[in-house]
Amino acid sequence: MEFSELIKTAKVENVLLSCPGVPAVKGTLCITSHHLLLSSQPGRDGEQGTVELWLLIRNVDAVEKRLASSSGTITLKCKDLRVLQLEIPGMEECLNIASSIEALSSVESVMMMYPFFYRPQNMKLEQGWHPYPPHHYYQQVAAETSVWRLSSVNRDFATCPTYPSAIIVPAVVDDEALRKIARFRQGGRFPILSYYHKKNQTVMLRSSQPLMGPNKKRCQEDELLLKAALCGRTRGFVIDTRSAQAAKQARMTGGGSEPKAAYLGWKRLHRPLERGRPLQESFMKLVEACNDPSLGMDRWLSKLESSKWLSHIKAALSTACLAAQCMEREEACILVHGAEGTDTTLLVTALAQVILDPDCRTLVGFQHLLEREWIQAGHPFHLRCAHSAYSHARLKQEAPVFLLFLDCVGQLGRQFPFSLEFSECLLLALFENSYASAYGTFLCNSEKERCLCKVRETTHSLWSWLNQPNQQKKYLNPLYSYNALVIWPSVEPQSLQLWHGLFLRWIRSSQYLDEAWTEIQRLVEGSEMPPRTNGAAHSQQLLPH
Amino acid sequence: MEFSELIKTAKVENVLLSCPGVPAVKGTLCITSHHLLLSSQPGRDGEQGTVELWLLIRNVDAVEKRLASSSGTITLKCKDLRVLQLEIPGMEECLNIASSIEALSSVESVMMMYPFFYRPQNMKLEQGWHPYPPHHYYQQVAAETSVWRLSSVNRDFATCPTYPSAIIVPAVVDDEALRKIARFRQGGRFPILSYYHKKNQTVMLRSSQPLMGPNKKRCQEDELLLKAALCGRTRGFVIDTRSAQAAKQARMTGGGSEPKAAYLGWKRLHRPLERGRPLQESFMKLVEACNDPSLGMDRWLSKLESSKWLSHIKAALSTACLAAQCMEREEACILVHGAEGTDTTLLVTALAQVILDPDCRTLVGFQHLLEREWIQAGHPFHLRCAHSAYSHARLKQEAPVFLLFLDCVGQLGRQFPFSLEFSECLLLALFENSYASAYGTFLCNSEKERCLCKVRETTHSLWSWLNQPNQQKKYLNPLYSYNALVIWPSVEPQSLQLWHGLFLRWIRSSQYLDEAWTEIQRLVEGSEMPPRTNGAAHSQQLLPH
Repeated sequence: MEFSELIKTAKVENVLLSCPGVPAVKGTLCITSHHLLLSSQPGRDGEQGTVELWLLIRNVDAVEKRLASSSGTITLKCKDLRVLQLEIPGMEECLNIASSIEALSSVESVMMMYPFFYRPQNMKLEQGWHPYPPHHYYQQVAAETSVWRLSSVNRDFATCPTYPSAIIVPAVVDDEALRKIARFRQGGRFPILSYYHKKNQTVMLRSSQPLMGPNKKRCQEDELLLKAALCGRTRGFVIDTRSAQAAKQARMTGGGSEPKAAYLGWKRLHRPLERGRPLQESFMKLVEACNDPSLGMDRWLSKLESSKWLSHIKAALSTACLAAQCMEREEACILVHGAEGTDTTLLVTALAQVILDPDCRTLVGFQHLLEREWIQAGHPFHLRCAHSAYSHARLKQEAPVFLLFLDCVGQLGRQFPFSLEFSECLLLALFENSYASAYGTFLCNSEKERCLCKVRETTHSLWSWLNQPNQQKKYLNPLYSYNALVIWPSVEPQSLQLWHGLFLRWIRSSQYLDEAWTEIQRLVEGSEMPPRTNGAAHSQQLLPH
Repeated sequence: MEFSELIKTAKVENVLLSCPGVPAVKGTLCITSHHLLLSSQPGRDGEQGTVELWLLIRNVDAVEKRLASSSGTITLKCKDLRVLQLEIPGMEECLNIASSIEALSSVESVMMMYPFFYRPQNMKLEQGWHPYPPHHYYQQVAAETSVWRLSSVNRDFATCPTYPSAIIVPAVVDDEALRKIARFRQGGRFPILSYYHKKNQTVMLRSSQPLMGPNKKRCQEDELLLKAALCGRTRGFVIDTRSAQAAKQARMTGGGSEPKAAYLGWKRLHRPLERGRPLQESFMKLVEACNDPSLGMDRWLSKLESSKWLSHIKAALSTACLAAQCMEREEACILVHGAEGTDTTLLVTALAQVILDPDCRTLVGFQHLLEREWIQAGHPFHLRCAHSAYSHARLKQEAPVFLLFLDCVGQLGRQFPFSLEFSECLLLALFENSYASAYGTFLCNSEKERCLCKVRETTHSLWSWLNQPNQQKKYLNPLYSYNALVIWPSVEPQSLQLWHGLFLRWIRSSQYLDEAWTEIQRLVEGSEMPPRTNGAAHSQQLLPH
């Protein structure tokens, strides 16, 4: 396929671009393989055309057209939730532009995507790729504990296609046993270490569900692995992100959950978290309500409620708090899984780490966490983020699990304004890049696919861009000061708020709030005062209610 | 009456005080005429008793008691929304304490209230009283326009008992005519100037409803006054804060609204705003929902909706925007009234001034505005703030109109973080002091009553306390920079937020947010950089949607 085949009209003059909150502008519209450009009329201000819009076509989630006799209007609804309108003279041009955008935005092949073509001058390929390789973390844990070991059983992705090559398991379990366990867990996702809580030497593991089936099949090696993971402790908790009933029903289709009798010392806790289609629909409903200017207060609040988005936030944060509490307070080990172990499982393990561990709350540590617990852990970004909230396409496997995570982290940031080193800007950039990006970081569904596509060798990493000194600045929280403590959020419904910065970003001007932020940053930089110390009052630990 | 008659037990040992978010503390409880004190056990830390609680008894909104065999628990629900629990050994002591608090908190006589007894060492009586006398403002307007004059028709409060002695009216209308008009307007509240918009010489007037009655009575002098107020312009708008139907129905009980035929050039706009009992119930429902820890997200949002509080915020801000728009955009004069002209009328005129006029957004200008448009304008604080959200007493005339105003100003502050010189702290202090105070500022229902009670001579002013340099600091917004423009808020339901700082103040710890604020303040003070200038981007005017 050549991109040129998909572009029926590459250039149209006198196109009027309008989007809410900004004055409309007329100019020349150009369609390239990856971008839609609108440059305002040359000579308008004696200039050679000012670029007014530079849109990655992959960012387009839905194209809607309305035709009149001699012109047409195209509405572009973007994955980052922006809505743009193009008024195009000429009915044929309008149809051609619309179908070109549709075709280009829905190219299926990963290798045809922009990251494989993007070659910024100031960056070198392979620079910044995996500045935070998870195996460094695993090596540390292995060295500190001596009861955990790095295994190369998944070197060629043969044991578990969605795991990276570096994983860490109890030292007493050999690779042969791991292969057996992989056959007993959905998609081969056998239990591996996700996080080691130094403070009291407890661990968090994650996996997929055991393939017990209707006959309650068992796997001795699996049971031994979980026994070994307890490291002599008497108690562990399996946090199953499905309801007890759903876990039981899963047996009918070959799955299940760890029976108490077979896994001595382990206690199961069920905390159902929504995922898949219901979560995607919640996202779509919320965005629809946010974009509806006709709503009164009563209907807005009832639509906010019926979208259930804030309920999902509450459930995710509560479950992450439970996981963190089991480790921090009960000094118990935990295993988190739902069914596949690639969605709500990662949501819980990643969030629990942000709550527990100050290192995960730094700019670099958070990138580290994302690399380890989302990207390399096999969250299927390509499938989950294929479409955002506007698409009319038939839903396949889309679900905003990662966005839900970012929203939860944002809630933590609002409740603890000093404790995250990064700002809301970073969360917004991550949201955007997970849905459409010039960088290869969120491409594909697993490390295996990324290796096959040579993502690391032929695309640039988002991290190397974000970490450039001139970029980094805007992602830092000027009020940050290291807080060694666990940050227990309030998960009461009254405390959780709609993420205005994301959901109302293109509707309400956040100009004044952005400027307030910039001003605080300016003040911090200009401040000659000694850095703020964490007084006793500040470092007081808040209890979860 | 002697206070001592109301105090059945003045002192109890070993009382356990508990309130959410703070460790419980045991100590000696003392009841004085105006305060409830709890000092922790002497000798505990070698100290002579540390005061742990110093509560103005007037702040108590409801007393609830639960008795056991040899002790009892008293729950004090305060007007500032705090909830405290006292565990008291001895059933009789418990009953005595409860009834003492009940009696002392419900003393009806204004002259018995704490402001008449409060004599702080560092303040002198009569100092700080009316540092912002409204007649200064009226003198300025009269001098600038020459078509307005100060009238002394109400010198002895005989023409209108709820107006101050200084008022400003069209110069062509003489005092005799004013007396006639006063008889044609409910409670004598004839139309007077509330605000003069220098920029385009338009004015805002306020009054009560005309007493037309079922026979559509007219008053020539009233018609002439409003004609004169137009100052030769062809258009004016009457903003009636009742629905068209309610205004029509009011004729049955002697009221009404200006008929078009009689008031040439004036057009009536009806914007119903809730007040009285429904507003009080909305407040009570909201506080109940905020305090309910058992709610899930769905029930919380549906209770938030059914309280209608945010709808009232939206309606008030929208109507104030309408008033501001009529003046700023349409260059028209306006008259605002509902029925009595002492509640929603003042809400609209005061809010419109905050939106339009940068002077009202300074710390001093805002106090000036409160003095002119709420206190001296005859908002019946004593009646409206007799009880807060917890009281079981039969509602008489309570309604949180002033709180609604403060909440609306807070919404403006969040949307325009640079434009208000004062912070949320000031709004919280004003809320508290309007319900229970050591200062005389919010006492009584009108200037007439304040004169009778010699409030100015025998109590201290809240303003003189707030404006002490060491106090003032905490009420200032560190990010403030003068913004000459109109601040048009977004009034979409999606943009309006629950006032967490007030409604969740005693439930969630705001410690981290408070510290963030203090930190910003510290930075601003330490900043050696030149003050921020209002760049073009910042001063861009936002359009109301």
